[in-house]
Amino acid sequence: MEDFNKLVEAEAANIQRQGEDEEERDPESNTLHQPLLKRNRTLSSSPLAIIGAKVSHIESLDYEINENDLFKQDWRSRSKTEVLQYIFLKWLLAFLVGLLTGLIATLINLAVENIAGYKLLAVVNYIEQKRYLMGFIYMAGANFLLTLVAAVLCVCFAPTAAGPGIPEIKAYLNGVDTPNMFGATTLIVKIIGSIGAVSAGLDLGKEGPLVHIGSCIASLLGQGGPDNYRIRWRWLRYFNNDRDRRDLITCGSSSGVCAAFRSPVGGVLFALEEVATWWRSALLWRTFFSTAVVVVVLRAFMEYCKSGNCGLFGKGGLIMFDVSGVSVRYHAEDIIPVAVIGVLGGVLGSLYNHFLHKVLKVYNIINEKGKLHKLLLSLSVSIFTSICMKLQTFNCPKGYYNDLATLLITTNDNAVRNIFSINTPTEFHIFSLTIFFALYCILGLITFGIAVPSGLFLPIILMGSAYGRMLGIAMGPYTKIDQGLYAVLGAASLMAGSMRMTVSLCVIFLELTNNLLLLPITMIVLLIAKTVGDCFNPSIYDIILELKGLPFLDAHPEPWMRNITVGELADVKPPVVTLSGIEKVSHIVEVLKNTTHNGFPVVDTGVIPPMGSPNGATELHGLVLRAHLILVLKKKWFLQERRRTEEWEVREKFASIDLAERGGKIEEVTVTKDEMEMYVDLHPLSNTTPYTVVESMSVAKAMVLFRQVGLRHMLILPKYQAAGVYPVVGILTRQDLRAHNILSALPEMKKSNGSKKGH
Amino acid sequence: MEDFNKLVEAEAANIQRQGEDEEERDPESNTLHQPLLKRNRTLSSSPLAIIGAKVSHIESLDYEINENDLFKQDWRSRSKTEVLQYIFLKWLLAFLVGLLTGLIATLINLAVENIAGYKLLAVVNYIEQKRYLMGFIYMAGANFLLTLVAAVLCVCFAPTAAGPGIPEIKAYLNGVDTPNMFGATTLIVKIIGSIGAVSAGLDLGKEGPLVHIGSCIASLLGQGGPDNYRIRWRWLRYFNNDRDRRDLITCGSSSGVCAAFRSPVGGVLFALEEVATWWRSALLWRTFFSTAVVVVVLRAFMEYCKSGNCGLFGKGGLIMFDVSGVSVRYHAEDIIPVAVIGVLGGVLGSLYNHFLHKVLKVYNIINEKGKLHKLLLSLSVSIFTSICMKLQTFNCPKGYYNDLATLLITTNDNAVRNIFSINTPTEFHIFSLTIFFALYCILGLITFGIAVPSGLFLPIILMGSAYGRMLGIAMGPYTKIDQGLYAVLGAASLMAGSMRMTVSLCVIFLELTNNLLLLPITMIVLLIAKTVGDCFNPSIYDIILELKGLPFLDAHPEPWMRNITVGELADVKPPVVTLSGIEKVSHIVEVLKNTTHNGFPVVDTGVIPPMGSPNGATELHGLVLRAHLILVLKKKWFLQERRRTEEWEVREKFASIDLAERGGKIEEVTVTKDEMEMYVDLHPLSNTTPYTVVESMSVAKAMVLFRQVGLRHMLILPKYQAAGVYPVVGILTRQDLRAHNILSALPEMKKSNGSKKGH
Repeated sequence: MEDFNKLVEAEAANIQRQGEDEEERDPESNTLHQPLLKRNRTLSSSPLAIIGAKVSHIESLDYEINENDLFKQDWRSRSKTEVLQYIFLKWLLAFLVGLLTGLIATLINLAVENIAGYKLLAVVNYIEQKRYLMGFIYMAGANFLLTLVAAVLCVCFAPTAAGPGIPEIKAYLNGVDTPNMFGATTLIVKIIGSIGAVSAGLDLGKEGPLVHIGSCIASLLGQGGPDNYRIRWRWLRYFNNDRDRRDLITCGSSSGVCAAFRSPVGGVLFALEEVATWWRSALLWRTFFSTAVVVVVLRAFMEYCKSGNCGLFGKGGLIMFDVSGVSVRYHAEDIIPVAVIGVLGGVLGSLYNHFLHKVLKVYNIINEKGKLHKLLLSLSVSIFTSICMKLQTFNCPKGYYNDLATLLITTNDNAVRNIFSINTPTEFHIFSLTIFFALYCILGLITFGIAVPSGLFLPIILMGSAYGRMLGIAMGPYTKIDQGLYAVLGAASLMAGSMRMTVSLCVIFLELTNNLLLLPITMIVLLIAKTVGDCFNPSIYDIILELKGLPFLDAHPEPWMRNITVGELADVKPPVVTLSGIEKVSHIVEVLKNTTHNGFPVVDTGVIPPMGSPNGATELHGLVLRAHLILVLKKKWFLQERRRTEEWEVREKFASIDLAERGGKIEEVTVTKDEMEMYVDLHPLSNTTPYTVVESMSVAKAMVLFRQVGLRHMLILPKYQAAGVYPVVGILTRQDLRAHNILSALPEMKKSNGSKKGH
Repeated sequence: MEDFNKLVEAEAANIQRQGEDEEERDPESNTLHQPLLKRNRTLSSSPLAIIGAKVSHIESLDYEINENDLFKQDWRSRSKTEVLQYIFLKWLLAFLVGLLTGLIATLINLAVENIAGYKLLAVVNYIEQKRYLMGFIYMAGANFLLTLVAAVLCVCFAPTAAGPGIPEIKAYLNGVDTPNMFGATTLIVKIIGSIGAVSAGLDLGKEGPLVHIGSCIASLLGQGGPDNYRIRWRWLRYFNNDRDRRDLITCGSSSGVCAAFRSPVGGVLFALEEVATWWRSALLWRTFFSTAVVVVVLRAFMEYCKSGNCGLFGKGGLIMFDVSGVSVRYHAEDIIPVAVIGVLGGVLGSLYNHFLHKVLKVYNIINEKGKLHKLLLSLSVSIFTSICMKLQTFNCPKGYYNDLATLLITTNDNAVRNIFSINTPTEFHIFSLTIFFALYCILGLITFGIAVPSGLFLPIILMGSAYGRMLGIAMGPYTKIDQGLYAVLGAASLMAGSMRMTVSLCVIFLELTNNLLLLPITMIVLLIAKTVGDCFNPSIYDIILELKGLPFLDAHPEPWMRNITVGELADVKPPVVTLSGIEKVSHIVEVLKNTTHNGFPVVDTGVIPPMGSPNGATELHGLVLRAHLILVLKKKWFLQERRRTEEWEVREKFASIDLAERGGKIEEVTVTKDEMEMYVDLHPLSNTTPYTVVESMSVAKAMVLFRQVGLRHMLILPKYQAAGVYPVVGILTRQDLRAHNILSALPEMKKSNGSKKGH
């Protein structure tokens, strides 16, 4: 212990310097340009910075049940009524998530269709009066203002509201808590920003934002309101843990997809296939309930709006892009065009991913320069979009609207509906479609990264449907499939080529288009496109996760992870910092101040085991969290002498609800000099059942355990059993199990890995 | 070690007696009446019968990667080509599973429709000639013969082919390997038996059997053919492990559902929601590929049969029970009838489960009496079914077929189609429907347990649709929903009430009926019916699993499992049997003969750890499997002296493919007296990375680990670290983590649990 203390002192200055570096950064500004984690920080040479590291501002979530004495008491004392309260509340919250998501989705639809609608009406009015320039100025001006509103809100109040939000939700469900992601401000900015951006005619959708909105609602409901105005309802305390919040956010994200596409089953599957890391049958059921509520709400509003109470809203039914009118006939020879669509969709999708990656990198450089630059970027994209529209739509002969204009002048939703339209083989000219496709490729690439809430689904569907219809016209002589169906298949293939989903996309398209007979060919197209796309690059969400530097833990361990053991990993890490079961206050303060770890193993020395040597043994008692240590210091729960406390003493001082609180900082705690000499009994606060691995365990298998069970800390035990062997070899966190971090800590692995790949 | 040996000798006689008991039972006859596991055997007082116990004939599957030296060598030496071979083969097998399942499903449909069709034609012919008695005799005789064929095959050749097979597949994917479940004989009997039973007009479906057939195909493909005629293709060795076989069987089961309902997405979801225990995104994709192939095959055959090449087959399209013709209009007030359907469906479904449980118990007593009794039971059910048909259909006035007759005289598929028929409010009289419903309730209860391949889906759909339509007629004045839709909703509610699935049933019904607008109300009905059903009893599959005594590991630990630690569990179990790293042959033989364990921890004593006491330490090296020990004995890989072997020595003797073999018996091994004195180096054969828990771990969390990672053995480590503490406290298997077993070993838990429930 002594030389450990020296080590701490030696490192203190070093660590403090790092801490200052971190504080300089603004925790709110986690946009793309700023990797939330410097990835080379972990497993670095700085001895105390790693174990249970809170690198930068991200804290891992704790999906494991923290079985300490307080939890057990609370849990044992739960009566049947309380269990029923919990179950009731669980379902009530799932209901409310669905209800509110449905309402907000309707609100957004209503606002978008009315704003965009009145804007278009005015423009058409100008054109009919032959005042073309005024028309253009009016349109560009309106678009500019709407974009300005959306961008100012995003830049100034909630930078996390920009973009789709789906990658962060995916990371959250994987165990990474991006800060300020699910707050009330984010929610409001996202709603208003999304309305502004979509009705500004930008090439983006409201689908991604709706998923984020659903998740925000779920998170806020779970914690009883915004951070500063929480409802302190007793029942809500059951939800004050990461596990139940995770389940709620899963419900929220699938409700969002459901609201976006009016696709309840697709929503559930999207959450299952793309977003969620852990999944249980019970959750499937609850998610399904939420989406059912969403769809009922949406339907009720559509019924209501049919009578004309909602302004320009209310044309569409529950099926967004209905193509059920066409009878699908296809034969064995149609496999060729279908395969062509799939392959091209895969290639185009991965090309889109590739270029979007480049564009986002350039945007990061621009955005880094400050808020004004962000704003200017958004506004120039808006102006560019308006000019593109103008060039195409206003240049046609007077009094005559060409087919391209019918696509460009409406909202994006209607454009899709037009391209999907069936039994209209002569409506669109291939030349118009080519221009439309090229235009939307450019717009899709440059629009996504700007500082407004933006979804990826609709731009990709637009591009894909145009390309599909082009292909349909080109293939015309050789096939009997309707051009509208080609457009549907093209959209599906580009989605699969870019997002790499299969079953959920298939169901979403089924629910979008209401044509079950299309299912077999949709399946084949999706499978081919995904396979082709996977040959070139990862999915677009993975690319964004990578760009944001979120420590996402992949489903599969890398093959070379079988060749190293967790013991070897522990060796290159600094020695583990442990605490005694009854620890001096001064030491706790010192450790908390000088390390950034979030968990510390608790080890008792000199205990007499029931069998074995009478010389005394060391005993691994458990793991105590930083948050709980700070709580102890804040509540000044100190003992005059070195003794174990009684159960009632603990119960008197702590409620189990206290343990769920987080975010206390050691700097806020003041401990007097006298108190420094006192003791704390850590036993009742330790999680006595941490998951463990033996040091000979391979990293691959340790990672499987870590991910499958949803851990935050994993203890490494020695494989030897003898006097003098310390009962904990090390501690592993999410950061330590990431391939990149391991490779930078163990460069020789990289080499052997590389040589393996080479031969 | 010495007193352990005494213990072994003392127990030998006891164990042998038990072994004889077991041999008397016929391993083939694992029908319902014979719990495959006497549940009170585990954690019993007999000291050596438990740890890693192979109780009765069931061996657990090993989904964990056995990382011993041989695996690592094989794995390291795998070239890139071999990895590509593996990936290629994985997809090829998924393709073949889909292809063959599709072909066999078509074959079954073809056979059933032709046999049943010609039978009906003949009967109708007799009736038209007014030879009613002859008609009845002809029909009853044909049904009798067909049932006889099915039952004789099942009883004599493959008892495991009786019933649906879904519970066993569910258990397999959970890690329980029911013997003779996926063999070639079972497959053939299942196909022929299913054709016979369905065309005999019995009240059962081909859906469950098709799931089983798909799984059999998958399993046979994975192992390269039937047990005795395997193809020894080198590539197939990659699939010689439980993990890949599990994935294949998942593909097979969803292909089966897809083939049964022509529902590709529903098939995937069924496998996901009901059957599979572990699930990965990659598997979702592969399963989806298989079902896509199935649907393409089915569609191709339908196209082919449209031209009349398939006898009486070929009327139906890809949608089995199309109700898309009706436009669904529903309003807020329709929520009441919908809720009524849901509640009633839940009640009826749980009632059905309850009575089926009773009937199955009675059948078990009858079936226990021998093969003849089994056969007679099946045949009497067949005769009873024929009489029921006769009573209803032949009694109507001459030359006039009543509405009931149109339901009873056709195949079950057509009956469903008739009841689902839309815009026909006057076709069925409520009285006819009541009789039909009552009749099929009785038939559904008595038919399921007989010794023929039988599915549960169709009987429940029949009952449910009749009850739904009855309700529709009764509600007629108060609702605008079509009676046909009531029938659909009734069928859905009864399915949910009995089988307790939600998302997958919803998609299956969507794909069966092709009416997307029905989705919201279907969802609500399913949710209500499942909730109501869950209040009364578990799902029908869980009931059957329980009846069969399969050690299925539930998803959720019981709440009281948090109150006990694995250490307490290890205390009530006999001491763990460990082996030394270099072990004497005689000791290995002794241990293998006197225990039934399948895994033994390998512990080295007297090693010098890199730090800590120089007095020598014990080291936990890993876990060695019984199968590998037997392999060593068979190959006579003995050492003259106590030494560790070199890597090349192992490689020379064992290929990694040998390690996948199972089922060797210690009785088949002969070891000479000289050899008994030699040694075996167990190090290279041990899995050096077994999953472990500390003895203070709660059983609840240990169970989560066990199930999430898919383990067979889990080692318990001591929490103390000192000289003289043995490095392994115990070993846990599936049996030890089942609630029932723990309660019988720790009766005081039961009490505290009971008292908790009481207050």
